[in-house]
Amino acid sequence: MDERERFQTEKVQPVLLAGHFRQATFSETFQAYNPTTGEKLPEVYPVSCWSDLELALEESQRAVPELARTSPEKIAAFINLFADLLENNQERIIARAHLETALPVEPRLKSTEFPRMINQLRQAAAACKERSWCQATIDTKLNIRSKYGPLGGAVVIFSPNNFPLAFNSVAGSDFVSAIATGNPVICKAHPGHPGTTRLMAELLLEALSESGLPLSSVQMLYHFNNEDGFRLVSDHRVAAVAFTGSRKAGLKLKEAAEKAGKLFYAELSSVNPVFFLPGLLKEKSENLAGELFSSCSLGSGQFCTKPGLVVFINDEAGRNFLRNLQQVFSQPPSGFLLSLVVLENLKAAVESLKTAGAELLAGGHVLPGPGFRFEPTLFALTGAKFLENPETFQTEAFGTLTVAVVVEDAAEMVKVAKSLEGNLTGSIYCSHSEEDEEIYKKLEPVLRLKVGRLLNNKMPTGVAVSPAMHHGGPYPATGHPGFTSVGIPAAFLRFAARHCYDNVPEERLPEELRSKNPNGRMWRLVDGHWTQADF
Amino acid sequence: MDERERFQTEKVQPVLLAGHFRQATFSETFQAYNPTTGEKLPEVYPVSCWSDLELALEESQRAVPELARTSPEKIAAFINLFADLLENNQERIIARAHLETALPVEPRLKSTEFPRMINQLRQAAAACKERSWCQATIDTKLNIRSKYGPLGGAVVIFSPNNFPLAFNSVAGSDFVSAIATGNPVICKAHPGHPGTTRLMAELLLEALSESGLPLSSVQMLYHFNNEDGFRLVSDHRVAAVAFTGSRKAGLKLKEAAEKAGKLFYAELSSVNPVFFLPGLLKEKSENLAGELFSSCSLGSGQFCTKPGLVVFINDEAGRNFLRNLQQVFSQPPSGFLLSLVVLENLKAAVESLKTAGAELLAGGHVLPGPGFRFEPTLFALTGAKFLENPETFQTEAFGTLTVAVVVEDAAEMVKVAKSLEGNLTGSIYCSHSEEDEEIYKKLEPVLRLKVGRLLNNKMPTGVAVSPAMHHGGPYPATGHPGFTSVGIPAAFLRFAARHCYDNVPEERLPEELRSKNPNGRMWRLVDGHWTQADF
Repeated sequence: MDERERFQTEKVQPVLLAGHFRQATFSETFQAYNPTTGEKLPEVYPVSCWSDLELALEESQRAVPELARTSPEKIAAFINLFADLLENNQERIIARAHLETALPVEPRLKSTEFPRMINQLRQAAAACKERSWCQATIDTKLNIRSKYGPLGGAVVIFSPNNFPLAFNSVAGSDFVSAIATGNPVICKAHPGHPGTTRLMAELLLEALSESGLPLSSVQMLYHFNNEDGFRLVSDHRVAAVAFTGSRKAGLKLKEAAEKAGKLFYAELSSVNPVFFLPGLLKEKSENLAGELFSSCSLGSGQFCTKPGLVVFINDEAGRNFLRNLQQVFSQPPSGFLLSLVVLENLKAAVESLKTAGAELLAGGHVLPGPGFRFEPTLFALTGAKFLENPETFQTEAFGTLTVAVVVEDAAEMVKVAKSLEGNLTGSIYCSHSEEDEEIYKKLEPVLRLKVGRLLNNKMPTGVAVSPAMHHGGPYPATGHPGFTSVGIPAAFLRFAARHCYDNVPEERLPEELRSKNPNGRMWRLVDGHWTQADF
Repeated sequence: MDERERFQTEKVQPVLLAGHFRQATFSETFQAYNPTTGEKLPEVYPVSCWSDLELALEESQRAVPELARTSPEKIAAFINLFADLLENNQERIIARAHLETALPVEPRLKSTEFPRMINQLRQAAAACKERSWCQATIDTKLNIRSKYGPLGGAVVIFSPNNFPLAFNSVAGSDFVSAIATGNPVICKAHPGHPGTTRLMAELLLEALSESGLPLSSVQMLYHFNNEDGFRLVSDHRVAAVAFTGSRKAGLKLKEAAEKAGKLFYAELSSVNPVFFLPGLLKEKSENLAGELFSSCSLGSGQFCTKPGLVVFINDEAGRNFLRNLQQVFSQPPSGFLLSLVVLENLKAAVESLKTAGAELLAGGHVLPGPGFRFEPTLFALTGAKFLENPETFQTEAFGTLTVAVVVEDAAEMVKVAKSLEGNLTGSIYCSHSEEDEEIYKKLEPVLRLKVGRLLNNKMPTGVAVSPAMHHGGPYPATGHPGFTSVGIPAAFLRFAARHCYDNVPEERLPEELRSKNPNGRMWRLVDGHWTQADF
């Protein structure tokens, strides 16, 4: 029986609750779409009732103490085994992800996103085993010792539509950060790729079972209504929520969760401004237009780091650059959008930009079916126009769309920067000419405080999984600019509480805080010195 | 002209705004009380109108970029100079703090709190200069580098009534953490000790001026109405809020701030449970009763780490311990409460405990005037009774009051632990007997996830200023269990954003991220290794 047949023999797909795939309790169902045809896929998924959520919460509560006393080695072994199983099933997973999202198999899913997901899992397993992430801080004189540890409640993950693998609620950075720090996880699949999520959750359950972790450490539901969502994130058994998705939905969940005292990590919106300084544009505006287009159209413009706003000066090189941009944006789309919702939002964004007075220089239209497609779209407006209404012109929209802000001079460029909301990234393209260096010195300090990651001569779409990476930024880019959702082990800290031990004798301390370094590799801050030695 | 005369010659005390002490705009005023007489002190302070807050916000906005580019050495010099000035004016400050709070000059204000405040400032200055706090994380291969830096907006500090020096909004841990990380600060004095705050703010302005920091780096208001408070914490020019105070007021501000996307660090409530295991009680119950009373009555029971709940087993040693407790709590109070509000809250707490069925074993009454005094108060109830209504019995109340929960056995003790809210601390008093070790193994994992600091055979009231200290805990003890408000430099991280640099050339990087270690002492995580070396 092949995958397709197996999925279809079950009337409504089961949810992963309490260590088993079981029939959901539901009163409604939904189906995913094939974005290339615009048609529904045959499998039917449940919109769970509260009783499913209640069971997930109750079970996660039982897993809290069990996971907290599970050794990092055991958790790491689980993560690595899960990565092995995913690798062994790569083709099935990629095929399903392609079917549900229309993201190209090559190079996107097979050569980029899948390896990224596996790499992230393996890095997390290594960091979990090494234990340095917990930042053991020891005052030997006062016998006070602290480290990060689990939160004491479940972590609920809402994952986005645009990365069905590397940000999937059951296999992405949020998931692995929460479990590596010893917290049980309740995952909400994105309704755009429920089948992909189910395939991966099956392997996850196998890995949980084989590695002897509590089976309720990870549970997965496909969907539930908004009211139940608010109730879930404010439940006393929940400690934290990670949400990546639309600003509107995110803010409502944020309010409900925070009102109940929960940690809420949200990635909400970002236009990722790119500033092109005049010196550089004089040197090579043509290449740069192509580079921008490549970044902007990556994944059909459905990256949270998509450059959605570009700013440059209205001089000869700038006007030339704008013509080059117009040229590269005047080409047919190479891919599909993820869903009808993305398409509708993009249409609305185009209308809103037009109404607000931006000039449409390329694209702007839905392409006739089948499938969800939209022309690459370029808008332009003056700096003065932008500054009249900065909120509207910096509204995030998925799709190959960017807004060019053509400013009169460097001073106006800095004003535009000052009018920006918090963003994940901000890029400055510049040469080493005196002119650019001078503008850089004025622009950078403003941009620095508005963004999480500041780039030079580089597009923002690549987000390397490095300990030095920061994927976060001031509100509304995220809810807390001190935390990152990408980069191991920094991303772990979102799901950690600081555990202090005061006057606790050696034999009752966790291994990380005893005199002997538990593995000889863990870094600890002992009396003000970072060391891997015993003390 | 002595202090008293000087204060009185001004009709309404001036606020510190835009680098000057100036007349506030106000429609109402207030006066502080002398808690030993219950009478108003003569000085009159303004309840600022919105225009004062607006000016503070606007000025702080101007200080944001200036402070962000100020060198850590310069900020550290300012903090050290401020500490010098405070030390040179120790007597005046302590006299005023004593007058406004009735906290004893010796040992409390002079030998404990004042040196603690100075020590905290000097530790912060040293940490600021050393720069390790910013956790520079460098990936040399990918040329991605991150560190913590300022937030890009003002930090608003609401300080508590119970530590007029060490937690004062213009000199305490919140203040120094926010300024050491390069953020401008807007301080709200506690209306219980406005004169103390004014004296210190005058020295602060002198230190700002002499050290060349932007004069609007720190501003101070005495009071404003609730609506203006909500408006302030949700203003776009504010990045974060630190609040230490009542749960009710704190939760309202938290909701307003978080709804607007602000970071809100709150210390809201904690009963700091102490568990006495039976083996130890058999050995020395008498000493322990005295130890508990000393901790409970410290600062007249007005510590956020006051042990407000003690739990032990109803065996012979336990009953004996309860008798000893009753004896030590049956003594007259040695000090005054901070305010009428504290007195009224304490009275209400006593009524609420009585109504809920706890047995009053000692105290329970207001003492006749003059001044705000209340008898040391001990309640007792069974574990079963506690578990019927755990919320009521774990309500925090300032004052020398504790609730003894006498449980039937170890299993019930664990149940009581499970029913606890998040707390700042949890203590276990135990021997190394087999019996205690066995109970410890069951109790500790439950308590660990409920508290920030777990103590053995030690009362929670001492909070050492050490890098390993954690003064925080799961909600509602605080708003985020990963952050501490005491302990340098960990407390800094509350007011820091992560700043990432991607592909930025050496000469455009901040010093902390360049190849050369800026001072040879700063710890940096370079390619997975913590080092003080250049790379």
